[in-house]
Amino acid sequence: MEKRFVYADNAATTNVSETAFNAMLPFLKEQYGNPSSIYSLGMDAAKAVLNARRQVAEVLGAARPSEIFFTSGGSEADNMAVIGGAELGAKSGNRHIITSNIEHHAVLHSCEYLEGKGFEVTYLPADENGLISAEQVSNAIREDTALVTIMAVNNEIGSIQPISEIGSICRERGVLFHTDAVQAVGHMEIDLQKSCIDMLSLSGHKFHSPKGVGALYVRSWIDLPSLIHGGAQERGKRAGTENVAGIVAMGAAITEAAADISARSERLAKMRDRLTDGILASIPHSRLNGGIKCRAAGNVNVSFRGIEGESLLLALDIAGIAASSGSACTSGSIDPSHVLTAIGLPEELAKGSLRLTLGDNNTDDDIDYILKVLPDTVKKLRRMSPMWQRICREEGIDDYTI
Amino acid sequence: MEKRFVYADNAATTNVSETAFNAMLPFLKEQYGNPSSIYSLGMDAAKAVLNARRQVAEVLGAARPSEIFFTSGGSEADNMAVIGGAELGAKSGNRHIITSNIEHHAVLHSCEYLEGKGFEVTYLPADENGLISAEQVSNAIREDTALVTIMAVNNEIGSIQPISEIGSICRERGVLFHTDAVQAVGHMEIDLQKSCIDMLSLSGHKFHSPKGVGALYVRSWIDLPSLIHGGAQERGKRAGTENVAGIVAMGAAITEAAADISARSERLAKMRDRLTDGILASIPHSRLNGGIKCRAAGNVNVSFRGIEGESLLLALDIAGIAASSGSACTSGSIDPSHVLTAIGLPEELAKGSLRLTLGDNNTDDDIDYILKVLPDTVKKLRRMSPMWQRICREEGIDDYTI
Repeated sequence: MEKRFVYADNAATTNVSETAFNAMLPFLKEQYGNPSSIYSLGMDAAKAVLNARRQVAEVLGAARPSEIFFTSGGSEADNMAVIGGAELGAKSGNRHIITSNIEHHAVLHSCEYLEGKGFEVTYLPADENGLISAEQVSNAIREDTALVTIMAVNNEIGSIQPISEIGSICRERGVLFHTDAVQAVGHMEIDLQKSCIDMLSLSGHKFHSPKGVGALYVRSWIDLPSLIHGGAQERGKRAGTENVAGIVAMGAAITEAAADISARSERLAKMRDRLTDGILASIPHSRLNGGIKCRAAGNVNVSFRGIEGESLLLALDIAGIAASSGSACTSGSIDPSHVLTAIGLPEELAKGSLRLTLGDNNTDDDIDYILKVLPDTVKKLRRMSPMWQRICREEGIDDYTI
Repeated sequence: MEKRFVYADNAATTNVSETAFNAMLPFLKEQYGNPSSIYSLGMDAAKAVLNARRQVAEVLGAARPSEIFFTSGGSEADNMAVIGGAELGAKSGNRHIITSNIEHHAVLHSCEYLEGKGFEVTYLPADENGLISAEQVSNAIREDTALVTIMAVNNEIGSIQPISEIGSICRERGVLFHTDAVQAVGHMEIDLQKSCIDMLSLSGHKFHSPKGVGALYVRSWIDLPSLIHGGAQERGKRAGTENVAGIVAMGAAITEAAADISARSERLAKMRDRLTDGILASIPHSRLNGGIKCRAAGNVNVSFRGIEGESLLLALDIAGIAASSGSACTSGSIDPSHVLTAIGLPEELAKGSLRLTLGDNNTDDDIDYILKVLPDTVKKLRRMSPMWQRICREEGIDDYTI
């Protein structure tokens, strides 16, 4: 099998689709007006932003386009929702927040910031499959709970949280509910009309828009405070000249993604399962991290005993496979993933983890290639690994048999 | 003279230059890696971001690239500096901020936000030319002053503030100094090595980069708190996947702008002066807003008695001229510009204002065209204006003579 390039890190970022690129192009060229300007060139830009707002609202099932606030990405949207939601609660004296211990750092570090400002945060522990139950949320809600923030899909192990049930409980108890849906939007159906989600974060570059654009959905009756103060853009809630080209691209990309979302998801899930089964069958002392059920269609997260994830990534890169260990936002960090630690992995297995996230551009040939390259790579790395030799010695494993 | 399109709103936004567009293009196409990823595709993106950081640092004369933090634009940079600078001061019990009454709303509304958090803000009044003096700043500094934030160039009337002097005073008195240089960077020389500026905001789309990208310069010894919490991007100070394409474009654009900054500025100033003189000579009851000295090279801001700025903009738009009244970020607002009010214009003149901001793409033919169209347009609007008729009646002006 010839060497090929296999991009298997679609949870980190995706390429810009042709549709998104073509949509944004005029706004990087002749359509350069500022949407706040009242002459034609400006109004055309404003119309394009409004059109993208409608596209995002329609795909999500928002009641109206004005519930969509464009941001610079998922992290800003998370900060705006969590810090803004907390500030809103504080106005009524409610300074308690509920989240989970497997959230993205954009949520966790916003919560830590709020702890420094006198808020109290409950971090619900995910189970071994990386799931938070609605019951856990229900039990944690107090009189002074201002906000519940639980992600829709975990970025590392792909666990899909019961956000509909959690939303219903929050609505019943009169508590704001935010979900970081950065890994969900564009990949699975979300219907805000049918759900009790009050705020939802999304990031364009996770579904084939360029980097640097995202959105926060905020239900119309919520008067969320701003995170970025200034001009009157985004109905006075998010100042700064709009990233017109990026916003237009995101509108086109979300519409494109929604068109065949279940067929795409089904295709990915099949590839995912073949990849998972193939890895576990061909590589001894490997395990799947996170559950098989309630798992994002493209997510494979496995651990191999006795090797370092970083070394594995570099070896795979040389073989043409782009993958990750932990989340991209914390690579360069030598701490084991907080998510893998949270679901009970010992440090050794957390550090020996590999995340392969499949996307629309992956093919069956890609899966074949990974299944051919990965077992040999793991074997070679283990042969060079003092950690693996120690494990073999201590547990009586004969290295050369595997 | 034939109808033509004249874009004279370069302070609102600029087109993306060919250099910037070509630089960003690969990052919207095949170079789609996440800079946090450790495989080649990701590392290439990280290298491109680092290269842009070096370009921005070099043009500004920053001591090192790591003093440049990329943001989603000027507003975010202003918020990060002002709110972060204030929070830093509060750690030592200093909760006083000095700014001016002609700052951009990104600074003013950040200050208002801080007032709500118990900070005290002194708003220095600009003089009739839109200038703040170093002496005013010096007199306003108190024992508990945490931050001085004074813009480099005003976005409406183009007044150039003495930021070098203000910086020196702040340094002497041990107070942090931030400048919103959104209208300065790419248009006039800035040398951070020679100045005492501690933090400086800039916005890419004001100098031919796309919208949605900017930066904050922060002197290395300042441990500024984050505005957006999350991943470890931007040395842990600004979370969120980098807008790689936008950042690369901005690096290319700032380098391009710096290459011939004085020649460009000289050319613009000549066009500006011809336009200003032509307008004041051909339109009676008109005035220049802001001073002639210390004025941005491309800025013309005039008021015409008896007409509404918005009607004038619409009429100019029909004639192919894109201009603004007040700043773009507050158009749609019916309040008169806070800047024009601050420099002493009565509401009538503030509402009858027109801002023409020239840029690199403007030509002498553009100036000729504006000078041909504008006097007739003002005349026509005055004939239809009840406000103008009242002025004529009350002041004994014979409408038909002008």
